[in-house]
Amino acid sequence: MPITVVGSVAYDSVETPAGRYDRKLAGAATYFSLAASFFAPVRVIAVVGEDFGPEQEAVFNARGIDIQGIEHAPGKSFFWEGSYLDNLNEAKTHNTELNVFATFEPKIPAAYADSDFLFLANIDPVLQRRVREAMPNVKLVAGDTMNYWIKDHRAALLEVLKGLDILLINDTEARMISGKSSLLQAAQAVMALGPASLVVKHGEYGATLFFSDGSSRPKSGSAHGAFRAPAMLLEEVVDPTGAGDSFAGGFFGYLASQPEITPPVYRRAMFYGSVMGSFACERFGTERLQQLSRKEIDDRFIHFRRLTHLD
Amino acid sequence: MPITVVGSVAYDSVETPAGRYDRKLAGAATYFSLAASFFAPVRVIAVVGEDFGPEQEAVFNARGIDIQGIEHAPGKSFFWEGSYLDNLNEAKTHNTELNVFATFEPKIPAAYADSDFLFLANIDPVLQRRVREAMPNVKLVAGDTMNYWIKDHRAALLEVLKGLDILLINDTEARMISGKSSLLQAAQAVMALGPASLVVKHGEYGATLFFSDGSSRPKSGSAHGAFRAPAMLLEEVVDPTGAGDSFAGGFFGYLASQPEITPPVYRRAMFYGSVMGSFACERFGTERLQQLSRKEIDDRFIHFRRLTHLD
Repeated sequence: MPITVVGSVAYDSVETPAGRYDRKLAGAATYFSLAASFFAPVRVIAVVGEDFGPEQEAVFNARGIDIQGIEHAPGKSFFWEGSYLDNLNEAKTHNTELNVFATFEPKIPAAYADSDFLFLANIDPVLQRRVREAMPNVKLVAGDTMNYWIKDHRAALLEVLKGLDILLINDTEARMISGKSSLLQAAQAVMALGPASLVVKHGEYGATLFFSDGSSRPKSGSAHGAFRAPAMLLEEVVDPTGAGDSFAGGFFGYLASQPEITPPVYRRAMFYGSVMGSFACERFGTERLQQLSRKEIDDRFIHFRRLTHLD
Repeated sequence: MPITVVGSVAYDSVETPAGRYDRKLAGAATYFSLAASFFAPVRVIAVVGEDFGPEQEAVFNARGIDIQGIEHAPGKSFFWEGSYLDNLNEAKTHNTELNVFATFEPKIPAAYADSDFLFLANIDPVLQRRVREAMPNVKLVAGDTMNYWIKDHRAALLEVLKGLDILLINDTEARMISGKSSLLQAAQAVMALGPASLVVKHGEYGATLFFSDGSSRPKSGSAHGAFRAPAMLLEEVVDPTGAGDSFAGGFFGYLASQPEITPPVYRRAMFYGSVMGSFACERFGTERLQQLSRKEIDDRFIHFRRLTHLD
């Protein structure tokens, strides 16, 4: 079933221990849609500047991603500059230029109206909420956010959380939203704010899926049917940029590919999320996602099973 | 098959976010032997002072642990004081008093000579090596160490590593020994120093088992048959002290309980390690390990399977 994603289509300049690059095509919606495109039809809502041309469009077209919802505006695309020199699990931001995103008014193409799945990638929660309200008929809504919105735009973010089925964030963000240091307590407090399910990403240690008491979760043990997926043991993490968005793309894309969303489907979705996140880290920017095959994805899924399963 | 463990039997004063305690029975060999005693016969080599009496002996006796190798010396037992206020995954040491351990000369009781398994808990590598050489007939040797020995006693530690089949350390220690920041590269570099297998403990994120190329490992994927066990999602980590030693006790105890050590047995051992480590964190000091039942252990094993397995 088709997924609509709203989020940034942008340019990044990044430095990691493996090297650096300047102004490569990036952005949460780009990573998400490339990853999700291996599982389901994807439609993007974003805004780009005059620096976004046929070369960039070709990246989306090659994966069959619908980009009629990418608006072209005068000026430059969103730009982010960051590094991971001290800690591969957390980016240090050196510069953020909103550019065309500063005045973005998301418009939803008529052809997107029948989307069953909606992903609100990490952007201003005011925009996330506007898109959510403009698509009242979607069946499942997931979203992401970041420290900046948690700290300085909390009221708007809390409104978004009320309308989410699934929130995907990292450990630090879960603790920031909840004020709790225990992961389990933090997860329960975050889900009390709205989302029936929560995915907490642990960087190189994988990710954990939590279900709130109200959802149709598998009841087993004290962690309320939680499920933990591993991350890949990579020889070298070349570039962690976009790993979380690629995780979200694999996770949500797999959910959208299934006729029914059951607890076992959620578990497999966690594995596919980890698989796509691990590929994103293997090359700079979106390089690896652009070159990937479905066979490589399924082989890594099997590898993840061996890494974690007793038999 | 019986396990001999050499290490500290000690007193700890500890502060955690959940509270504090003063001079409770502790030490790596105490946590290890309590945890391992649920799986195999355990024999302890250590030294204690005049502050160790019938009350402390009763803790070992209640679990059927052989303590004829615990030597009594004039003076006080080893004492450690630490806290986990900023980071539950890493202790801050406030005070260490070697006391009777300063002049310890390990003596191995004749009745221990038929031990098939030897565990060298975290003590001076010179002592670890001496015990290893005094027990040449053991079939499997595992050991632990810590940042202090890695930094300031590297030569002695490297000698110990040559005689180990399995080393159990945490992420920071693996990176310190190897000088590599990638976990997989660090693991490979550590195993090149001796141990055919390596367990890297990730605190609240579980632990990973690595096999060197030379060992009879299951060959699968780029991480050379690695296996990742989860940690428990606890409502509250009351006291992480001894969690690593309890992991080692569950891991090595389960290996010692099996007729043959195959790759699937290694995987189960990782789960039992995580299970015992998680129980250790639930109460202050060794309280939880003293009150534990085998049924609780097996129930948690099943919970861990549900937490990580797709079906």
